[in-house]
Amino acid sequence: MRFVRFIKGDDSVYGILEGENVIELSGSIFGAFEKTDNRYKLSEVELDIPVEPRTFYAAGLNYQTHKDKMSAAIGMDAGASDAPDIGYRANNALAPHNSPVIIPADATDKVNYEGELVVVIGKKVKNLTPENAMDAIFGYTIGNDISERNWQKSDKTMWRSKNTDTFKPMGPWIETDVSLDDMTTIVRLNGEVQIRFATNDMITGIVPFLVRMTKYLTLYPGDVIWMGTEGDAPNLLNGDVVDVEITGIGTLKNTVIREE
Amino acid sequence: MRFVRFIKGDDSVYGILEGENVIELSGSIFGAFEKTDNRYKLSEVELDIPVEPRTFYAAGLNYQTHKDKMSAAIGMDAGASDAPDIGYRANNALAPHNSPVIIPADATDKVNYEGELVVVIGKKVKNLTPENAMDAIFGYTIGNDISERNWQKSDKTMWRSKNTDTFKPMGPWIETDVSLDDMTTIVRLNGEVQIRFATNDMITGIVPFLVRMTKYLTLYPGDVIWMGTEGDAPNLLNGDVVDVEITGIGTLKNTVIREE
Repeated sequence: MRFVRFIKGDDSVYGILEGENVIELSGSIFGAFEKTDNRYKLSEVELDIPVEPRTFYAAGLNYQTHKDKMSAAIGMDAGASDAPDIGYRANNALAPHNSPVIIPADATDKVNYEGELVVVIGKKVKNLTPENAMDAIFGYTIGNDISERNWQKSDKTMWRSKNTDTFKPMGPWIETDVSLDDMTTIVRLNGEVQIRFATNDMITGIVPFLVRMTKYLTLYPGDVIWMGTEGDAPNLLNGDVVDVEITGIGTLKNTVIREE
Repeated sequence: MRFVRFIKGDDSVYGILEGENVIELSGSIFGAFEKTDNRYKLSEVELDIPVEPRTFYAAGLNYQTHKDKMSAAIGMDAGASDAPDIGYRANNALAPHNSPVIIPADATDKVNYEGELVVVIGKKVKNLTPENAMDAIFGYTIGNDISERNWQKSDKTMWRSKNTDTFKPMGPWIETDVSLDDMTTIVRLNGEVQIRFATNDMITGIVPFLVRMTKYLTLYPGDVIWMGTEGDAPNLLNGDVVDVEITGIGTLKNTVIREE
């Protein structure tokens, strides 16, 4: 099932996407919900980010080639630990499908995309096991982890490099039915394929992350976990269009604007 | 004015604290609100965290003695940058006044408190200036940034060291009327004063942080910024009681439980 979140007046509401039709819902997608009588065409609604997470988690350096290239490029000792230590991103940076990524005027040229699978949590859980970890997942969406590589080196934290407003496009919707091992992530820049990789070919998979995280922390419905990306990427220029497609979910598309 | 948030049935609601009396509110404390006819004694209500932030920001190493001691203790190059690079904490770790801090069984002995001033944002703001930055602030509360120092060294991020469930007590309430330069932070362990410092004696003050942060990111009503702590602290033991008092706000009190 595909859950879209779209703007209606001053609020955002959920709907189920069936083909090109959106059926508005009442209630909570993480609890009880019902279909309303309101119907829209997908092309008529303005999509919002598919969920506002209570906590926004992100795995770093979780695909082998990306880890190797980033270690070299930004001088991080990426090989120091293979333990799945989760990181964080900030809600201010989230931006919906079809909205612009705005690069501040003082950013350097080294701004890259990162196409990522996003896990959306559906239940309040702690102490998950390898056997029950997947039951905590509500569905999946797509993220583009826009990163300013020089700020990533110079700042003590990744606050500017990763969390500048609009640097975290997420969407277009949440898909609940996927086959992880059959999925491919395809990133296109201005329509041309830049990279294609097996979505589930992570160094640390979803289950080990969930098990280790929930030994120490409680996950809540709507929390998101961005699972990392593969490869490296060219520098983004004003007017570039980035599509992150994950087969079985959809395509997240955003246009880059560089402030003058 | 003092705003308390307390548990009522399955929800948490706001009230105004006048002396020992709580007057329940309707509406939003960040927008329009009204007093209801419901009155309680403070001693009768169970306090919740005073706000659930959209994003949970934290300044690191922002008082001189703490910065020097931490640099030595955990081998961080704390002197590398004096730029105010904001960090992040996670909402799962928040815990109210009078609730237990639960230290996991596999934590080492090196678990410390950090008494901190917490800024609560009241408006949606970007590009603040030195002249208008303070207008973005709704009020102030108190935080205790519980930290496991060995995990802080070993993990790639601070996810376990700082964000284990219950490691971020915050409260007891939000005070809107303070005189920053007159405030003193006093931390007591089992009733004995451990440290006393001028709350506003930060390396980077609130205004420069707000100005630099909002050059890149939008702050939202309810966002919190923890401003850092001074000095160092003894290792916390099972049964310890930590009081963080900030004069003009109140006292945040939590008891430590070490899991077996």
